Amino acid sequence: MNERDALRRLAADLPRAGDDAAVVDGTVITTDMLHERTDFPPGTTRYTAGWRAVGASLSDVAAMGAEATAAVAVYADETFDPGDLDEFVAGAVDVCAAVDAEYVGGDLDTHTEFTTATTAIGSVVDEADRDDAGAGVGAVTRSGASPGEALCVTGEWGRSAAALRLFERGTESALDRANDLFRFTPRVADGRALAGNATAMMDSSDGLARSLHQLAEASGVGFALESDAVPVHPAVDDVADDEAERFELAAHFGEDFELVCTVPEGKLDRAREACPAGLVRVGTVREADEGVTVDGDPLPDRGYTHG
Amino acid sequence: MNERDALRRLAADLPRAGDDAAVVDGTVITTDMLHERTDFPPGTTRYTAGWRAVGASLSDVAAMGAEATAAVAVYADETFDPGDLDEFVAGAVDVCAAVDAEYVGGDLDTHTEFTTATTAIGSVVDEADRDDAGAGVGAVTRSGASPGEALCVTGEWGRSAAALRLFERGTESALDRANDLFRFTPRVADGRALAGNATAMMDSSDGLARSLHQLAEASGVGFALESDAVPVHPAVDDVADDEAERFELAAHFGEDFELVCTVPEGKLDRAREACPAGLVRVGTVREADEGVTVDGDPLPDRGYTHG
Repeated sequence: MNERDALRRLAADLPRAGDDAAVVDGTVITTDMLHERTDFPPGTTRYTAGWRAVGASLSDVAAMGAEATAAVAVYADETFDPGDLDEFVAGAVDVCAAVDAEYVGGDLDTHTEFTTATTAIGSVVDEADRDDAGAGVGAVTRSGASPGEALCVTGEWGRSAAALRLFERGTESALDRANDLFRFTPRVADGRALAGNATAMMDSSDGLARSLHQLAEASGVGFALESDAVPVHPAVDDVADDEAERFELAAHFGEDFELVCTVPEGKLDRAREACPAGLVRVGTVREADEGVTVDGDPLPDRGYTHG
Repeated sequence: MNERDALRRLAADLPRAGDDAAVVDGTVITTDMLHERTDFPPGTTRYTAGWRAVGASLSDVAAMGAEATAAVAVYADETFDPGDLDEFVAGAVDVCAAVDAEYVGGDLDTHTEFTTATTAIGSVVDEADRDDAGAGVGAVTRSGASPGEALCVTGEWGRSAAALRLFERGTESALDRANDLFRFTPRVADGRALAGNATAMMDSSDGLARSLHQLAEASGVGFALESDAVPVHPAVDDVADDEAERFELAAHFGEDFELVCTVPEGKLDRAREACPAGLVRVGTVREADEGVTVDGDPLPDRGYTHG
């Protein structure tokens, strides 16, 4: 059984699983494991690893439209080098600070491969706390999209794909830039702004294409994506040979930890104004039987399968 | 740097780390990693593994005197066998149900060794919710013990040590019993009862002896332990050859996930009545310069070092 089928099986058994994070009594909780072989290419600093691992969980909190409260991490390695550990913790502390959350520690474990397990918690804002623009209401799940709404994304895409190419290049300047690209800002502020405006939302850890298929399945809709509209990170231009590769890296590679959401036409302007990372319309929600398309052709449900 | 020194270093840098769990805005959060080589002997069922891994985190919530709310887990293995995964989840669901918490899912990851990372959250009860007996107040840390108070423990000790011997024995009936012993009940109800009565508390994952040294350091006190008073699990009698080995397994082995706490004399009776797992006085809090002793002799700060 592959990881995807296994996840689907889990979601069927556990009523609160299957979204980016679970919501229990207004508290959002989500957990992830990243490890060296599959997630941290040679050249990834421990500072970047701490930032990115904790950031991945904070991104899931963001995808629910929740405030991020705190994060913890397990740091497992063959040995504990004090410098490595300090760097990792500094990265974890800094990514939490970037989204007004607090890194509160965790656990250490001896393992044959550098492995991190991170958990973030957040809180869903009460109806009573909603602001005048309607933001900050409840959790945003994957299942609320309706045909006719705008399909939107935050930020710029292909960042992690470009970083991987730079890690492979291996020069000092390429590694510096790759580490910088790997340290994304979790879209907590944007997720908060989208709560109350977006009807469905998720983060893009598996790539835009796969995310659209997952949103389509959860909401019972289709999507018409316009490839030209997808905001591509400038670093992609330095590593992609042509337009096709550019779209491949931006739409299929994944791990960009941006938000993908659906917004009713009438709320689009205010949602756009409220998102610090930028919110771009990349398509339209369609009926389920129209499927998920890009420029009118079927969009393959294909991404990078992460270990 | 060994794991213990590394943990101490972490606690120095992170103000909310260093106790059994961190407390942020009334929410308690704690995380742990367990893996096959060091934590699940051959013969451990996946049901037991799910129960025990999630239980370890719930035990940390209990040690803060908090209510347990929810738990998540990462399940990582070389392959995903549907039966194994279902069993693991069933164990996780059942241990959560045993303490009125909810298992809400988690993540899957491919790894070279069966590895779990679990996180539990809980909530510290407000002052306003305290009951007439004073239970349910705030979080109980490791640092509040004072000389003259009673040193107490919940439950029976040596359970996991006995289980390990039975796993080694390897017969079907021994394995059944070992699995049963491995599935401890996290002492959440006892921890709740002790909140407001205990001045310091922790769980015993590193064993009684090591726990006492940690409590002594955090509270700036000493302890006089009476070996005869330690409640030993009946399974220990089946695997220990003599009285010395009996005490060794009960006091040094660890992983029993019982609570160790200090209670002022005047609150001892009501604390005892309120603990469903039983609360036994095993010694007295002393001045720091008297050290940690057992029957008048120094108690070595020695336990089983878990990977």
